[in-house]
Amino acid sequence: MANLVNRRVVLFKRPKGVPDAEHFAVEDVRVPELQDGQFLVQCEYWSVDPAMRGWVNDVPNYLPPVAIGAPMRSFAVGQIVASRHSDYTEGETVTGMFGWQRFAVSDGSNVDRRVAEADLSASLALGVLGLNGITAYFGLLDVCKPKPGETVVVSTAAGSVGSAVGQIARLKGCRTVGIAGGPEKTALCRESFGYGAAIDYRNENVLDGVKAACPDGVDCYFDNTCGPISDAVMTCLAQGARIAICGTAAHTDWDPIPAGPRVHRQLLVARARMQGFLVLDYKARYPEALAALAGWVREGKLAYNEHILDGADAARGAIQMLYEGGNTGKLLVSVD
Amino acid sequence: MANLVNRRVVLFKRPKGVPDAEHFAVEDVRVPELQDGQFLVQCEYWSVDPAMRGWVNDVPNYLPPVAIGAPMRSFAVGQIVASRHSDYTEGETVTGMFGWQRFAVSDGSNVDRRVAEADLSASLALGVLGLNGITAYFGLLDVCKPKPGETVVVSTAAGSVGSAVGQIARLKGCRTVGIAGGPEKTALCRESFGYGAAIDYRNENVLDGVKAACPDGVDCYFDNTCGPISDAVMTCLAQGARIAICGTAAHTDWDPIPAGPRVHRQLLVARARMQGFLVLDYKARYPEALAALAGWVREGKLAYNEHILDGADAARGAIQMLYEGGNTGKLLVSVD
Repeated sequence: MANLVNRRVVLFKRPKGVPDAEHFAVEDVRVPELQDGQFLVQCEYWSVDPAMRGWVNDVPNYLPPVAIGAPMRSFAVGQIVASRHSDYTEGETVTGMFGWQRFAVSDGSNVDRRVAEADLSASLALGVLGLNGITAYFGLLDVCKPKPGETVVVSTAAGSVGSAVGQIARLKGCRTVGIAGGPEKTALCRESFGYGAAIDYRNENVLDGVKAACPDGVDCYFDNTCGPISDAVMTCLAQGARIAICGTAAHTDWDPIPAGPRVHRQLLVARARMQGFLVLDYKARYPEALAALAGWVREGKLAYNEHILDGADAARGAIQMLYEGGNTGKLLVSVD
Repeated sequence: MANLVNRRVVLFKRPKGVPDAEHFAVEDVRVPELQDGQFLVQCEYWSVDPAMRGWVNDVPNYLPPVAIGAPMRSFAVGQIVASRHSDYTEGETVTGMFGWQRFAVSDGSNVDRRVAEADLSASLALGVLGLNGITAYFGLLDVCKPKPGETVVVSTAAGSVGSAVGQIARLKGCRTVGIAGGPEKTALCRESFGYGAAIDYRNENVLDGVKAACPDGVDCYFDNTCGPISDAVMTCLAQGARIAICGTAAHTDWDPIPAGPRVHRQLLVARARMQGFLVLDYKARYPEALAALAGWVREGKLAYNEHILDGADAARGAIQMLYEGGNTGKLLVSVD
């Protein structure tokens, strides 16, 4: 493969908190020869996800931090262009932890799944038919366990995970309330994602908004923030509320742990449950989620937005863009 | 009943935080005549419980605050001395929310249960065979759901709830680690309540102690504190940990909500669950708990301590004593 140039985005220096463009560098290297049991994936799209901030910071996490000089860890989708692996064939489309690189050599261990939905864009396998959609599916249905008629509140409601949470909750017969930043996003919440109410945390008082939208309290809260938005919602819990902790985007630094109002008494008074979850733990059940999600997409019941950046250089600032909320929809990089 | 004097302890003024003796007054009033459908309980013991602090403060709670001039709300055990109620008979022993008064008129709605364990002291019905024991039973077995071999950490480990939690966890095959204040209480933990390890939060570094006692992390944490002890334990969670929020004794004032390290990321990284519970929600299942608890007491497998104060005047300072940790064992008042 010595004739192929592998353009990749590597971690250049270690950030504290959210990495920006200066923490990454673009470099071109040669693609090594494949060994037996390996295959080569040509990436079509790279994913940009909130978890990537945690992967580059040197703090305890569920994965070790990305090394300086290594390609940025990320999900990606691409086509197998060469194979010396008996289970993978040239021409197959796969998703996996291929990193921010044009070409990834894989032995299959970092493959998430084969993409069978040939009628849909491969990019969806990184969004609504990828970990975002699957995260929404299990975080809502397995952690929150909403019942028809209950009130479900979603933070980052117009995002790639949140928008799916709100729509799945509505499909399950719940009242949905979305919290998002800015009038464009709240309009998206109401018009594209079917939220019964939407609160603009940049221009409205969130507590007043939640109280008005949830007169009987919040039964389920799908949280991606862990900041002032979450603090407001936590004062409005209905008895037996379930809170799914999906992410903690409001805090860029967890060393030391940021302080906030203690949640214990709210959980006690409401007999409520707050639970963290990681979608990777559900791997054995991905097919169940994907079958449901692809069905809803094909039936036009599950809308999604994509925000696609162009090429490796644009990837360098992508995580910062995500944390600043500059994207509308699932943030992807089209690989150059 | 006009010939009977009802000595009672009433709320004299509303505290902020923990009430002390000056917030209560002792008064003697006449016992009213019974109406049809009523019966009269002569209290033998009054209970002193952490929840009573919340009942006298004017902040949101699961029950409205006790009114100024009203007898202090409390659990009590006593004997029915007169009855015009078809379901309750003179001579029966009952527990219920009879308040800090010598004589309570009841229509049955505030009765918790009939005490059938005639071979055991009536006082146990307010402790290990009362809400304390039942709280331990359901908080541990229904909320934490410990598995044999797991590590269970208990705060206020020598207290009337915590001591039962530790012993039940041990009976279920768990390793138990107790956290208590002072060498006398940690000795009690080890010697009377069978904890595998005990940490003295007054004289030891709790974080170091938890790390040393829980090399594989904390699987279950039964918390009564919601303060620095809890903050330390929360940094040592094993994957899939379950935290039962039973009480929040470290904070005397919840208006405004005290700040502390945010737990969200710990819950996320450990895929852990933190859940508040209230024993009263388990009322339909009390018989299951009482049968198990009484069995263990009779077999000598479930030890308990009682700390009995003498009379109404001593009751006035009892809640303060409880919050200062001045008692050893279940705090009760012997009714004069």
